[in-house]
Amino acid sequence: MSTPRLSIGIDLGGTSIKAGLISDIDGLIDERSVITEAESGHVRVLDQISDLVSGFLRTDDAIEGIGIGFPGAVNWERTVASKPVNIADWEHVHMPEAINSRLGTSLPVLVENDANAAALGSARFGAGRDFDSFIMITLGTGVGGAIIYQKKIFRGATGAAGEIGHMTIDFEGPLARSGVAGAIEAYLGQRFLSRHARYQLLNEKDSLVHGMAGPDLLDISPKILYEAALQGDAGSTEILAWAGNKLGIVLGSAINLLDIRKVVVGGGLSAAGDFILASARKSMVDFTTPALRDGLEIVQESSGNEAGMLGAGYLVFEQTGEVGSD
Amino acid sequence: MSTPRLSIGIDLGGTSIKAGLISDIDGLIDERSVITEAESGHVRVLDQISDLVSGFLRTDDAIEGIGIGFPGAVNWERTVASKPVNIADWEHVHMPEAINSRLGTSLPVLVENDANAAALGSARFGAGRDFDSFIMITLGTGVGGAIIYQKKIFRGATGAAGEIGHMTIDFEGPLARSGVAGAIEAYLGQRFLSRHARYQLLNEKDSLVHGMAGPDLLDISPKILYEAALQGDAGSTEILAWAGNKLGIVLGSAINLLDIRKVVVGGGLSAAGDFILASARKSMVDFTTPALRDGLEIVQESSGNEAGMLGAGYLVFEQTGEVGSD
Repeated sequence: MSTPRLSIGIDLGGTSIKAGLISDIDGLIDERSVITEAESGHVRVLDQISDLVSGFLRTDDAIEGIGIGFPGAVNWERTVASKPVNIADWEHVHMPEAINSRLGTSLPVLVENDANAAALGSARFGAGRDFDSFIMITLGTGVGGAIIYQKKIFRGATGAAGEIGHMTIDFEGPLARSGVAGAIEAYLGQRFLSRHARYQLLNEKDSLVHGMAGPDLLDISPKILYEAALQGDAGSTEILAWAGNKLGIVLGSAINLLDIRKVVVGGGLSAAGDFILASARKSMVDFTTPALRDGLEIVQESSGNEAGMLGAGYLVFEQTGEVGSD
Repeated sequence: MSTPRLSIGIDLGGTSIKAGLISDIDGLIDERSVITEAESGHVRVLDQISDLVSGFLRTDDAIEGIGIGFPGAVNWERTVASKPVNIADWEHVHMPEAINSRLGTSLPVLVENDANAAALGSARFGAGRDFDSFIMITLGTGVGGAIIYQKKIFRGATGAAGEIGHMTIDFEGPLARSGVAGAIEAYLGQRFLSRHARYQLLNEKDSLVHGMAGPDLLDISPKILYEAALQGDAGSTEILAWAGNKLGIVLGSAINLLDIRKVVVGGGLSAAGDFILASARKSMVDFTTPALRDGLEIVQESSGNEAGMLGAGYLVFEQTGEVGSD
């Protein structure tokens, strides 16, 4: 029986910073988190990360390194983290220097895009565990994605692969935040889907959402649609199926390109389960070329909020434990 | 100075079988070809391949192996070739057995999808030589594709990756042969593009194509459009730009997913050059998320008909010469 390897995995978000003690065998062993002082800028946030890490360092000195899932761009070497979405005053930070100088250590520190880190967590400890390769799509505020190929993150040429949310399904479709017409995020992103639902249901006065989403349905959300659908609301059920149909279209498109036929769906909207996934499974087949239809599968992510920490921690094992080719 | 390595590269097509003596340094050294006896079935076609190979074997016994670009599906191990598009009576053939038993040899024989082989040829000896990673798209009768990642074929989960021709750009668009709505092949495939041009130009009586494409424009083709455009024909120029616009849309979509920002365009229609590529470059940017727009580039394939043989031959060097990870 071999001793488990240990690392620290950080999931840095605009709302909270989660830190986990990660074992290559048992996954998440211990966990701490703090509210991100996102308005205070990079110096303060780096202090927060270091404080979380030092708590674990005191209890166990067998820790091999630190992995960080970061909500922004990362360089190819996984050292420099740039321009996070929801943290103020953060241009480019060399993470190994920033963390080790604060802690007085010389540990390996690796930073990876948060969607990629979460997908790696799924590949090792979550719903992706059963698949060698899969497409991860995260339905949250926006639509994120990542590609796991042969159990590793497929990084593309610069480390930014997996932006499935920006793939178009209709070149004359609505503009997403990125400016890409018909990008899937313009259908499934939280605000887009909510607006579509409001437009569809505003005059459907029988719909249960009228008792749930405030005056003029201004508070309508994917969560409310799901709750109404659970209670049998036809209009909400139909909109979730519409969203699932769009999801399946972009997945078919991605599958044609990648020949990766397994999909893990995460993020808040994935909680709607088969209200979305049943129609997604159908359109995914329709938009995949017949030669690639065997073995198509969509599953829901199971590791939830922990996937980011788990994957970030696993980066360390991957980097230091193998004579890798990438 | 090291001795060049040698292999035989076969480009098996429904019309001709091309065989080349390939050097890892100098590329194509010698070449033979025959008309494919496609109606005679697999036994005869395998005889034809073996005859071509044996010609080279007599002249040089330093040949390391045989690579075959095949117009159909190939298994993960690159041994079994299944159901080629335009060859009769061919279900599943174990190519190493079929070739070696005919020649009385025990050479390594590797078979790869023809689009993948051509892309590898481009990566090593053609327009893709300057890129570590690129997307290859081939505009011919259909629309084919392949992904080169870090100088190797990205094969996906089963070896069938790169079917960019089946990616949709409009979920309510025209049906491609595969049945996928709005697949790019339904815009750029030879018959689709010809039909679109005929429809657009039939009543544009000033267009030069009326003197070039027979009565009722029944013989119109991408080649005629290109020739008319070269002579300044406005209608033909506009249609080629329309086609390029669609090309750029699907490329943007693929780039978002792969973060591979270099594109090599081959196939007959690529001869139209900037008549197509100028508009493709523009829409490719529009359909790529802003964070991935740096370094986008489309180039035309240069090695032409030789790319298939070159890539097929190179498979042998790749497989036998490296302690590879894939």
